[in-house]
Amino acid sequence: MEPDLQLYSVRTDLALEAKEMAQGPQRTPIPGVNEEVEESDGIKVTRLGVANAAGSQAIGRAIGNYVTLEVPALRNGDTGLQQKVAEVFAREFEDFLTRIGIGKDASVLIVGLGNWNVTPDSLGPLVVENALITRQFYELVPDQVSPGYRKVSAIAPGVLGLTGIESSEVVQGIVDRTKPDLIIAIDALASRSLERINTTIQIADIGIHPGSGIGNKRRGLTQEILGVPCIAIGVPTVCYASTIVNNVLEMMKNHFGQGAGHTKEIMGMLDDISEQERLSLVKEVLEPLGHDLIVTPKEIDEFIEGIANIVASGLNAALHDAVDPENVGAYTH
Amino acid sequence: MEPDLQLYSVRTDLALEAKEMAQGPQRTPIPGVNEEVEESDGIKVTRLGVANAAGSQAIGRAIGNYVTLEVPALRNGDTGLQQKVAEVFAREFEDFLTRIGIGKDASVLIVGLGNWNVTPDSLGPLVVENALITRQFYELVPDQVSPGYRKVSAIAPGVLGLTGIESSEVVQGIVDRTKPDLIIAIDALASRSLERINTTIQIADIGIHPGSGIGNKRRGLTQEILGVPCIAIGVPTVCYASTIVNNVLEMMKNHFGQGAGHTKEIMGMLDDISEQERLSLVKEVLEPLGHDLIVTPKEIDEFIEGIANIVASGLNAALHDAVDPENVGAYTH
Amino acid sequence: MEPDLQLYSVRTDLALEAKEMAQGPQRTPIPGVNEEVEESDGIKVTRLGVANAAGSQAIGRAIGNYVTLEVPALRNGDTGLQQKVAEVFAREFEDFLTRIGIGKDASVLIVGLGNWNVTPDSLGPLVVENALITRQFYELVPDQVSPGYRKVSAIAPGVLGLTGIESSEVVQGIVDRTKPDLIIAIDALASRSLERINTTIQIADIGIHPGSGIGNKRRGLTQEILGVPCIAIGVPTVCYASTIVNNVLEMMKNHFGQGAGHTKEIMGMLDDISEQERLSLVKEVLEPLGHDLIVTPKEIDEFIEGIANIVASGLNAALHDAVDPENVGAYTH
Amino acid sequence: MEPDLQLYSVRTDLALEAKEMAQGPQRTPIPGVNEEVEESDGIKVTRLGVANAAGSQAIGRAIGNYVTLEVPALRNGDTGLQQKVAEVFAREFEDFLTRIGIGKDASVLIVGLGNWNVTPDSLGPLVVENALITRQFYELVPDQVSPGYRKVSAIAPGVLGLTGIESSEVVQGIVDRTKPDLIIAIDALASRSLERINTTIQIADIGIHPGSGIGNKRRGLTQEILGVPCIAIGVPTVCYASTIVNNVLEMMKNHFGQGAGHTKEIMGMLDDISEQERLSLVKEVLEPLGHDLIVTPKEIDEFIEGIANIVASGLNAALHDAVDPENVGAYTH
Repeated sequence: MEPDLQLYSVRTDLALEAKEMAQGPQRTPIPGVNEEVEESDGIKVTRLGVANAAGSQAIGRAIGNYVTLEVPALRNGDTGLQQKVAEVFAREFEDFLTRIGIGKDASVLIVGLGNWNVTPDSLGPLVVENALITRQFYELVPDQVSPGYRKVSAIAPGVLGLTGIESSEVVQGIVDRTKPDLIIAIDALASRSLERINTTIQIADIGIHPGSGIGNKRRGLTQEILGVPCIAIGVPTVCYASTIVNNVLEMMKNHFGQGAGHTKEIMGMLDDISEQERLSLVKEVLEPLGHDLIVTPKEIDEFIEGIANIVASGLNAALHDAVDPENVGAYTH
Repeated sequence: MEPDLQLYSVRTDLALEAKEMAQGPQRTPIPGVNEEVEESDGIKVTRLGVANAAGSQAIGRAIGNYVTLEVPALRNGDTGLQQKVAEVFAREFEDFLTRIGIGKDASVLIVGLGNWNVTPDSLGPLVVENALITRQFYELVPDQVSPGYRKVSAIAPGVLGLTGIESSEVVQGIVDRTKPDLIIAIDALASRSLERINTTIQIADIGIHPGSGIGNKRRGLTQEILGVPCIAIGVPTVCYASTIVNNVLEMMKNHFGQGAGHTKEIMGMLDDISEQERLSLVKEVLEPLGHDLIVTPKEIDEFIEGIANIVASGLNAALHDAVDPENVGAYTH
Repeated sequence: MEPDLQLYSVRTDLALEAKEMAQGPQRTPIPGVNEEVEESDGIKVTRLGVANAAGSQAIGRAIGNYVTLEVPALRNGDTGLQQKVAEVFAREFEDFLTRIGIGKDASVLIVGLGNWNVTPDSLGPLVVENALITRQFYELVPDQVSPGYRKVSAIAPGVLGLTGIESSEVVQGIVDRTKPDLIIAIDALASRSLERINTTIQIADIGIHPGSGIGNKRRGLTQEILGVPCIAIGVPTVCYASTIVNNVLEMMKNHFGQGAGHTKEIMGMLDDISEQERLSLVKEVLEPLGHDLIVTPKEIDEFIEGIANIVASGLNAALHDAVDPENVGAYTH
Repeated sequence: MEPDLQLYSVRTDLALEAKEMAQGPQRTPIPGVNEEVEESDGIKVTRLGVANAAGSQAIGRAIGNYVTLEVPALRNGDTGLQQKVAEVFAREFEDFLTRIGIGKDASVLIVGLGNWNVTPDSLGPLVVENALITRQFYELVPDQVSPGYRKVSAIAPGVLGLTGIESSEVVQGIVDRTKPDLIIAIDALASRSLERINTTIQIADIGIHPGSGIGNKRRGLTQEILGVPCIAIGVPTVCYASTIVNNVLEMMKNHFGQGAGHTKEIMGMLDDISEQERLSLVKEVLEPLGHDLIVTPKEIDEFIEGIANIVASGLNAALHDAVDPENVGAYTH
């Protein structure tokens, strides 16, 4: 399998991280990028808007809307918190749909990207498994569908190694035949930061771009390609060994820098070179040995199930008015 | 969920059973239907040809070619026998392709029909999981593919209740975009006979017709619909409670009939009415109570894995010359 | 594998069925057996007490207490009903403990009998997986355990074919070392009646006897053997093909008998022989052919998960006062 | 859950790593520790003997025998190589038994430690699932067992969080009742080195000591505790984030040290402090943030299945003369 070349830079799938890197430690505002932050109950919601080409170029992200939920405590596996996050996610997703002009009746195709045989890459298929599917009722008994629902279908197209077919090909074939008004694509991501793994959810209206997520997507899922709007929901579930090292060296720098101020003495050049240079150093060492492994926390089985339930419950409540946000859990396994 | 009305007659998905029913106990030959039987090592292979409209009408099956493997001993779960059956299946399937004019280079899309969450309906998805997939190499590195392989892709399209989309829609979308030369569709079937469950494999070049198999397919997968030849591979994995009763009454009739000849005394009217009438009687009793359950043997988990391995191994060897029929098992889990 | 000889009579694991068979169609009361029936919301609860040797002999069951929940509508997979049944089960189980003199502080070992690789036999292991386990806290941090809980441990000992060890040996070893005050053993059963499969739960304080349940237990789990009280919870999940036939012939008899009265004409001798004789006739036909399969409904995967959730939720609420019976579901997956 | 305190030093479960650390970069021989290395086909076998107290103290390992297989290429998932490693493992294990005086007829209890719900901790249960179990035949039909087999039973005792019972309690209960001559305990380990994850297998006759492996074992499985010899088979499947960082800093040191010689300039103090000090520094930074995650490679599902097959196949061939080492794979799924 060829390497995921795109990942071999301080690349991130999260707009929030891209913005932070562009801002630098001073957190200087970026023209063309607006931001709104809200936090309560340990759930931090950041709504980013990349309004124009200048903003887009500054942070290396497409023009569009991005919402990020950060919930560090999700790592502790608290069922009550998961329920709370599902409710916030549902509300944010519903607002997001309104903001980008998707109506209550728009039919939806949920696409669960990823490989069900690889636990950290199985988020998409798991969400599909728990989504509330209704399209068949609209097709077979249209006059018997209760109000408060909309037409939702879902597919987990698999990955190239399992099917021999690009997932985007499978999706496009289905879009051509079933004509949904909106695609929602779920994907597991690689994180630039150890602490974001399994604790962060991103919603974006820019679709899935080639090379994003885990695995190597050669073709994307975007409005340009599919002809319908495409919202991407992503959760970081893995990171590179080199990312961990780089990340920890940064923490060490901050840690020792705050104290005595002789970071340079402790860390040598590793202290004052840029993050990009430092990561290159780390890779220079790891790659020839084939040791730049992609890793995931030991507890990934439980994490991925928890996050998939949050996303599925949240989507069910956001897409169907008849599904009560306080009781979203009841519709998933 | 609406009932599978088509199953509510002495219906069968096996051409061999349809032929036997049409022939009656005297086994009179049927004009327009030719038959070739071969048996060795406990594996009985029947090659049926329905040559013309007369034959088709007589047995209620489409004009076409049908091959059936019957292996009663498969019920015992002997690994050595499974390997042997995989080899015979591979050889028969390869001959079948030649007979119906499919060349060595024809590209193939394997379609695994059925619901992976329902064990007796998971045959198709399991075969897909174990099939040797190569299309991606032909697309990405065409000049590096070794000789002895052909282009194979595979998809398990799920069922209407899981995806909201007819499996035939999903398949047609993929066929439109990837243009395979041949479809091979795998499906679990309902059996008319208790002893055929998990011991019989049918190959047919007539595709999948609406209402066949487990679940209620509203649209088929046929050459007419898809525009490419479609071979169906089916294995009976379930039967109706009423089928069992009817089946056993038939066995009782034979059993007591052979002995003293007073079957009538023992079984009353159940002895001399037609099979169709008797089944109606049984249904008349069971259906109003909601007790005409579809059942499967207790050991279905192990059976379905064994049969899926046979079919996947056999297909891998039949489709790729480079895969050795004696060692087909190595390519599956 | 040797046959389950015990099952080859009109045997049943349900005391309720044994009583009904002993009573005959007239439902004559049986001395030494008292009965209390309550029904609401489609849930029928029968509390049987076998008070003395006469009662025991009459129905062929050990002296003891038996509670049966019958919920025909469970077959429809309604989540709301499952929740309701879990609550009733919790209440009945709590009363049962009181009735047989088990205190609030009695420590419990839950034993999940059966084979996790055979879906209809996996009830016990599934309940264990979802039980609220607390013993480790009492052992490690006894002063930090909140009130409202008791000491609960759990084990799925596997089956002889998987481990080479009788499950009763494994349990006895654990009992010797951990000294629980009570054993609760969960087991899947064979049913005499098609309609009881997956719709009936039995609680009994007589333990598990050799040859009961699915699989062939050579040693039991009883107070005599283990030295502590042993409650058995059982759910029928399979039945024999011969049982189905016998069952349906009985239904036919009732059906035609009610109408014109010429059942004899229709069914011959099958009409007026005893159930036991009829079953022998059926077996005489099926067994030599090896066709007396043990079968389970096609939807067993979903059924078994639903019933396991009911039993686990119910047990969690009944065993721990701190677990709210209205919210029992939250503690299981 | 309390932290695994024992892991918070440059601790390793591998005797080979302990020896290398004790030797230092000069690889000076250690009195009381003898070593034999053999390498072919990319499989490196190291046989260590810790002969006396001096040797034991020098490397911090119990007196005993240790065999390590290192196969870096296992990371590539080559089926042919897996087969080869299973054969070498079988041969080494058989020799190991002979060396420590275990006879051909010694009965064996295989113990699969770990949590089947946590993929990187599921090695033990997976090996148990694939082991060839024979004890039941010796118990039930002793005169019908073919020559070339021995009495083998197996159990996966679960973990404290799942059962409420220490796995050692479960095992001791079973040992008390079934009296095996030998215990073979399989466990997943934490590695000190990124490159050993999923590529190394250790055999040792010192049993399982408290605090070894993944999870926090409070009691061990040793001859002292159980009264029978106990062989441990371990495979590293996870490591700490801090281990990765420390490991990479070591690689950087070597990398830059070889070149220009100005490592100090690049890495500051990180260059010349001891490994132990460096790891402390890293932990000082990571722990307060709760970021010293235990991680595993993204491909863990496939790795663990591959390694479990190797160990199970190898054990089956080593324990039963009738199982052919060239065909060991056929006995596992």
